[in-house]
Amino acid sequence: MEELFATDKTRDILPKIKAFLVKEIYPLETAQNLTGRFSKVAKILDEKRELVKQLGLWGLQHTVEEGGLGLTLCEFGQVSEVLATTPFGHYTFNCQAPDIGNMELIGKYASQEIKDKYLHPLVEGKIRSCFSMTEPDYAGSNPVNMGTTAVRDGDEYVINGRKWFTSSADGAAFAVVMAVTNPDATPHKRASQIIVPTDTKGFKLERNISIMGDHEADHWASHAEVTYTDVRVPVSNLIAAEGMGFMLAQERLGPGRIHHCMRWIGISERCFDLMCKRAATRDMGDGTMLGEKQAVQFWIAESRANINAARLMVLRTADNIDKFGASAVRNQISEIKFFCANVMLKVIDHAIQIHGAYGITDDLLLSFWYRHERGARIYDGADEVHKSALARSILAGYGLEMKKKVPQVAFSR
Amino acid sequence: MEELFATDKTRDILPKIKAFLVKEIYPLETAQNLTGRFSKVAKILDEKRELVKQLGLWGLQHTVEEGGLGLTLCEFGQVSEVLATTPFGHYTFNCQAPDIGNMELIGKYASQEIKDKYLHPLVEGKIRSCFSMTEPDYAGSNPVNMGTTAVRDGDEYVINGRKWFTSSADGAAFAVVMAVTNPDATPHKRASQIIVPTDTKGFKLERNISIMGDHEADHWASHAEVTYTDVRVPVSNLIAAEGMGFMLAQERLGPGRIHHCMRWIGISERCFDLMCKRAATRDMGDGTMLGEKQAVQFWIAESRANINAARLMVLRTADNIDKFGASAVRNQISEIKFFCANVMLKVIDHAIQIHGAYGITDDLLLSFWYRHERGARIYDGADEVHKSALARSILAGYGLEMKKKVPQVAFSR
Amino acid sequence: MEELFATDKTRDILPKIKAFLVKEIYPLETAQNLTGRFSKVAKILDEKRELVKQLGLWGLQHTVEEGGLGLTLCEFGQVSEVLATTPFGHYTFNCQAPDIGNMELIGKYASQEIKDKYLHPLVEGKIRSCFSMTEPDYAGSNPVNMGTTAVRDGDEYVINGRKWFTSSADGAAFAVVMAVTNPDATPHKRASQIIVPTDTKGFKLERNISIMGDHEADHWASHAEVTYTDVRVPVSNLIAAEGMGFMLAQERLGPGRIHHCMRWIGISERCFDLMCKRAATRDMGDGTMLGEKQAVQFWIAESRANINAARLMVLRTADNIDKFGASAVRNQISEIKFFCANVMLKVIDHAIQIHGAYGITDDLLLSFWYRHERGARIYDGADEVHKSALARSILAGYGLEMKKKVPQVAFSR
Amino acid sequence: MEELFATDKTRDILPKIKAFLVKEIYPLETAQNLTGRFSKVAKILDEKRELVKQLGLWGLQHTVEEGGLGLTLCEFGQVSEVLATTPFGHYTFNCQAPDIGNMELIGKYASQEIKDKYLHPLVEGKIRSCFSMTEPDYAGSNPVNMGTTAVRDGDEYVINGRKWFTSSADGAAFAVVMAVTNPDATPHKRASQIIVPTDTKGFKLERNISIMGDHEADHWASHAEVTYTDVRVPVSNLIAAEGMGFMLAQERLGPGRIHHCMRWIGISERCFDLMCKRAATRDMGDGTMLGEKQAVQFWIAESRANINAARLMVLRTADNIDKFGASAVRNQISEIKFFCANVMLKVIDHAIQIHGAYGITDDLLLSFWYRHERGARIYDGADEVHKSALARSILAGYGLEMKKKVPQVAFSR
Repeated sequence: MEELFATDKTRDILPKIKAFLVKEIYPLETAQNLTGRFSKVAKILDEKRELVKQLGLWGLQHTVEEGGLGLTLCEFGQVSEVLATTPFGHYTFNCQAPDIGNMELIGKYASQEIKDKYLHPLVEGKIRSCFSMTEPDYAGSNPVNMGTTAVRDGDEYVINGRKWFTSSADGAAFAVVMAVTNPDATPHKRASQIIVPTDTKGFKLERNISIMGDHEADHWASHAEVTYTDVRVPVSNLIAAEGMGFMLAQERLGPGRIHHCMRWIGISERCFDLMCKRAATRDMGDGTMLGEKQAVQFWIAESRANINAARLMVLRTADNIDKFGASAVRNQISEIKFFCANVMLKVIDHAIQIHGAYGITDDLLLSFWYRHERGARIYDGADEVHKSALARSILAGYGLEMKKKVPQVAFSR
Repeated sequence: MEELFATDKTRDILPKIKAFLVKEIYPLETAQNLTGRFSKVAKILDEKRELVKQLGLWGLQHTVEEGGLGLTLCEFGQVSEVLATTPFGHYTFNCQAPDIGNMELIGKYASQEIKDKYLHPLVEGKIRSCFSMTEPDYAGSNPVNMGTTAVRDGDEYVINGRKWFTSSADGAAFAVVMAVTNPDATPHKRASQIIVPTDTKGFKLERNISIMGDHEADHWASHAEVTYTDVRVPVSNLIAAEGMGFMLAQERLGPGRIHHCMRWIGISERCFDLMCKRAATRDMGDGTMLGEKQAVQFWIAESRANINAARLMVLRTADNIDKFGASAVRNQISEIKFFCANVMLKVIDHAIQIHGAYGITDDLLLSFWYRHERGARIYDGADEVHKSALARSILAGYGLEMKKKVPQVAFSR
Repeated sequence: MEELFATDKTRDILPKIKAFLVKEIYPLETAQNLTGRFSKVAKILDEKRELVKQLGLWGLQHTVEEGGLGLTLCEFGQVSEVLATTPFGHYTFNCQAPDIGNMELIGKYASQEIKDKYLHPLVEGKIRSCFSMTEPDYAGSNPVNMGTTAVRDGDEYVINGRKWFTSSADGAAFAVVMAVTNPDATPHKRASQIIVPTDTKGFKLERNISIMGDHEADHWASHAEVTYTDVRVPVSNLIAAEGMGFMLAQERLGPGRIHHCMRWIGISERCFDLMCKRAATRDMGDGTMLGEKQAVQFWIAESRANINAARLMVLRTADNIDKFGASAVRNQISEIKFFCANVMLKVIDHAIQIHGAYGITDDLLLSFWYRHERGARIYDGADEVHKSALARSILAGYGLEMKKKVPQVAFSR
Repeated sequence: MEELFATDKTRDILPKIKAFLVKEIYPLETAQNLTGRFSKVAKILDEKRELVKQLGLWGLQHTVEEGGLGLTLCEFGQVSEVLATTPFGHYTFNCQAPDIGNMELIGKYASQEIKDKYLHPLVEGKIRSCFSMTEPDYAGSNPVNMGTTAVRDGDEYVINGRKWFTSSADGAAFAVVMAVTNPDATPHKRASQIIVPTDTKGFKLERNISIMGDHEADHWASHAEVTYTDVRVPVSNLIAAEGMGFMLAQERLGPGRIHHCMRWIGISERCFDLMCKRAATRDMGDGTMLGEKQAVQFWIAESRANINAARLMVLRTADNIDKFGASAVRNQISEIKFFCANVMLKVIDHAIQIHGAYGITDDLLLSFWYRHERGARIYDGADEVHKSALARSILAGYGLEMKKKVPQVAFSR
């Protein structure tokens, strides 16, 4: 816990959440639950959700009006870190991506009718949703190029296209789909976001894409390829207004990146803890412990410094978003995105190396994160996209105008 | 192909092998075959073995007496590189680890009786075998500490112990087991290697360890945890002589590391090829190709330089082993072990990043190697072990004698 | 300026200092002033000190009682960053090491007599001083091993020994010498700190050590080798009490490391500024600017993120020292020491590369810092010492007790 | 010595050269000789040249016809490595850049008249020369943009322009100047190379540029800024033919890069030797030696592997140039240029860190190379230029044609 950003609320709830996770969730991190179908463990996690409600910790991310605690982004970031110390944390607390992003979006921009129909069951954890933006045929880092269209026909949109990395689509009740509604507008005003119930005719989950060996990953942990063939939905399913799809995506991505970064810090902290435990207790066969090796000490020291640096950066950025809005600190958001992803991946790697052969087995958490978090340097804007965007913004301050525009968003999840 | 080490034999067979792989094996690299049970694809590969035999390419690694081509280690290294460009190459040519190591060992050190019984069916590809050395309760990098014992009782050894990373045990006909036979000898003369048929009473495959998400990996691709409980085998199953276990392990590891390193170079080359194809053809949405990005160019250039450096180092070492024996170039063997493993992992990582979201799916080979080759920095002596061993040997030449001995072998596969 | 740690005082003085430096000091950064004898430029800087006094910015680091602004460590850190944007900043403001450390030490621990005699002229900038701790014959990272002795003889200490890296000795009025007074005490209670006027008989400045090519470096910029041969000083020249030398060194090093780290951040910022200016204006000969190159953008982005991370870490640590004392945040101090030194050296390196051949000339500042700051990873505790110390402290929290103690201090300057 | 490329000649002369250097030249590596004016030590080195002649080792790089040994490039590379183990080696053997390049060029392309006048005294070591290509006002990596012109006026060229990094100009008898003679030709056929005696009217050595603190560096070690104002030389001073300047520069740079790379490997080996000596003998104050530290062992092991890899790459490339010509292995030349420069700089850095404070003093060689070899990543094509060139060439093989051409040469020395 970073004292600099602690509040009364975080001082109150963080220890409770941590204690709950250690007692109820960590024991579920078995090789069996960490591989194969997610739906197996989801049943158990759904039961744990009842305990969360009993503890009064349900709906942490919601506003006071919605029955939540009204946490600031900076406060919720600190919650997110703790939840992320286990792969099952966010789901148990119903603040897993992409549902949390959809809840924020619908809560803020959708009509009351939409809210009643889609938001409330989502908030209660009765249904799940997905976000359908990335397309296999277009460079993920350039959202302006998009093949999916939504053509208005009377009171309906007719949607056609192919998406992938529509994460959590398997079993979801609805998708928020990004589609071109205004092909003749300027690039950033062409697309809209539209709600499509997954039981609509023409919506087809083609397959759950096998990612990093998880050919059975289903349920919330799925990453689907989806086709939309003459899918018809009422015009009222539009979120906000036509042409606002890109703006909404941006709106989502600011806080979304805080969520990701704090999640990565939580993962890093857990790996750090595993690494230190191993170092302190693994006998090298000669009476000395692994932690007496200088290389191991260096990994521990560097990991500690890097994680602390990452956390300060993210919480400062979250605090600034709370104060000034996301667009005011776009540079900081780019900065933390690539900084934190790389810190986490290095920490995971060190933790594996310290565990030796044990580190690559699924008896430990490490291999799960090694596989699943490799994407962190890619999704929501690859390292390269964010670095270029940051540098261009800085160099603009030095008078450099570049002709070539840099893309703004990359595949999200 | 590195002209410096090319011979008439390699000039003849390498293109044939490459052509065979491209035509018959590469098409099998589907998400389905790269995940889940290995036994599915093994059936198809077993059929392909017949084609290998028809092409006269079966048994490449054997001596002329054994019906092979009598390739030098340096020549076979070049074969191994080509085979490794697909995960299914070595198995198809029946020169997969640990069978190839067991064949070498038995061919060189076992009695005629043992050869007739175990070697010949192995060479013909009728049975498979495994190597049972690493133990979960002892630091892999210090083989002197070992819990498994083989106590002589009349004409039999009675073996008790627990092993893991007994790779390929699932379905194997026999194991070569490392066990302490002479507890009172000096540390490096305590252990022996003994053949144990897997249907012997007391041999129990406890589980196929789930590694990097592959909870279903079976057959040759399994990594088993095995217990030995009062397992009785005839004394004639001993390889070489009592107390020679450690020496045999060393003997195996010299060429074994050449095999690994050349395999890693083959993997690196395939990833490099995928990376370049993607860079040359992926439109960024603005008419420029991904390969016009400077960062992508740097990854390509650095990968190219590093792979070339790695290959020169390994082939030079193999050539020296052929000329002077493995013990004369121990330093070079340590050098290539950590150098090549790190080159490969960096190349794989760049290749994934260049493919973006596609790179982490199992539609491509990259995620398979990303997962499976993380172990390269750990097995057969972790990076750290080899670096220390090399430095100690160098510093001994400067007169530095250290009290603490460095371990010599780590968990093999 | 990091808003998170800004105060009314820093908001007031930082812009004034920055403006003064840009106008009066930056123009002095010529190849001529950056090489050869420091005494050349010192004359000009001494004149600029008068301007500093006129601006009311003299003595920033002092307490209110001493006529200063009573800045906290966290506030002074922010001043230090700005001063460090030029190699001549700290000297001009009379807060250069080692004088600033000696002023703190004497101000806090010396008798009134000593203060009158040595502190006041130091504060007024009339004399300079040096700090004589490191010895060539002993590993710098282990201060417990020290050859210099101070033997009491009546009312005098008789000092004998050899020191090097007695920085700024050339022209200094006195040295604070670390010497063993109590050889039979426990290791950390053996040494004391004693003031030795440089005109005392037996004090000999053997040579100004040539560092990184600066064979003429003199005056404040000197790094002397000094011998003490039967040097006699009155017992009243002792600072604090006998045996407290090590404690005083530690006391000095806590804030001292904040000073160094903030100085490194100031250097990094200046290099970053030079890098961006070059990137924004250097035509590649084809109408595009250097800053349009992706590699250049990455260096800028990574530098920006790393510098920001470093500053947050250091100011947080300074703030904690202000609140809880240096010993409470020893781990944080180790963390920032190696983190910031490495960030700076990477930024300098990128800045040079971006400038091409121009970057290695002394027409620019970069080569000065490239040469002079390589030591940052060595002095005041090498990277390796701090990483081990940090890891050991962390692992102690996991129950690991190591027999071998880690050294605590390394050569300072 | 790498056995793979050893020949009878190298086996004969390398040990002689090494023994000579150790006995006669290494003792000259004092702080005094490594800083300040080069002309001081040059006098001593000039005397040592007589010993070289007595040993029959003078003129190693020349053809048999010119009285040399007729070494291949691959053989001379091995000589160059040994010479480079001291900063004074190449000069003592009269094969220092840029004279060696000028000798090669004039020997191969100039008229007999020019050879008699300029080549022979150069070969005898009676005069020195310089090479005047890089210009401060044009990006070094794009030689097509050049401001210096040579306009034909009767039997003379009239040359006007400004150059810098005209290395060794101070005291040189003549310069080989690159100037635009055919402004209307295609870019690569615009420039020519012309000999200009330095006592010609209008040739002005404006200053020896201060590089990395060496404000006094003169003689062969100078890096001059030179202006050409209406400099008139006879047309017969042209080398080869008009418009061939760029081709000649390329011709020079192929072998030139082998020379640089082998020089860097020699430097790396010397630093490696210093590092190991220190590690083996520096007591940490507790009876253990520095080399028992794991981090130190890692630096040694990684340095050893990297240097070996670098040497194999360079000698293979040299061997290929001998067999197939430089243009056939352009990719390999790019590869070794950035690979070796980075290996060397890392080795130097490790060697400094291992020596602690001692490592940054000029009492040791390390700081000299740390300063002087930073340019290795810049001159003769920056890392970035070579990486892009290599990748573009590889990607062309995958069908990617890029519109933007990459520059070919960068500032040489």
